[in-house]
Amino acid sequence: MLANQPHTIAACNARLAAVGDALYAIGGKWKLRIIVALMEGPRRFNDLQRTVAGISARVLSNELKEMEMNDFIKRNVYVQTPVIVEYELTEYSRTVMPVVEALSEWGTQHRAYVQNKGREESALAV
Amino acid sequence: MLANQPHTIAACNARLAAVGDALYAIGGKWKLRIIVALMEGPRRFNDLQRTVAGISARVLSNELKEMEMNDFIKRNVYVQTPVIVEYELTEYSRTVMPVVEALSEWGTQHRAYVQNKGREESALAV
Repeated sequence: MLANQPHTIAACNARLAAVGDALYAIGGKWKLRIIVALMEGPRRFNDLQRTVAGISARVLSNELKEMEMNDFIKRNVYVQTPVIVEYELTEYSRTVMPVVEALSEWGTQHRAYVQNKGREESALAV
Repeated sequence: MLANQPHTIAACNARLAAVGDALYAIGGKWKLRIIVALMEGPRRFNDLQRTVAGISARVLSNELKEMEMNDFIKRNVYVQTPVIVEYELTEYSRTVMPVVEALSEWGTQHRAYVQNKGREESALAV
């Protein structure tokens, strides 16, 4: 079904493994949203928490640690009074942008699809 | 950072919302893997469970129900002895293919990146 890819069991398994690897690293509810929130530039913790609606401080803190270990973000500490800590996307995080773009396009069309389906169903219910 | 997209707060919020919508529908550990596993054709429950390594029967059953409600898969019941139940991708599930492709490509390069990083770190440790 994918363009330019042969449909063998080996190809299917390779794709399954690759998608599994990707979801392991950037799947879950928050990581891609945090990346999108940092696309405009570095942000401080509280600012980031406000932007990624619904995330708790504890979960955000854990996600940021994992993302730092995976080279997606850098944590910059500015030693001054008060100390400022900012999170910033790395060069490597840019490799995720085609995924963000594909998800963003699909999310937009899926919202339209669900709304349209809802309208059709309420028209049938009348 | 995304090509051809203006970088305003409104654009960022719209993208955040679209990515959020997409992750809500196809995020999580399993849905995309189930879709990839069905790309070769319809499968029965046990066959699907073997292909999607690590999923329990209860979780697979729940995921399939949600995916049916979201128009990603069809459940075909063949009334015969024994009754055969097969799961199949819908036309609509094809809209997800660009996301699968982007994730699959990214997963492949990320695996290479992590392996390379591991080699560099063990070289440093020697």
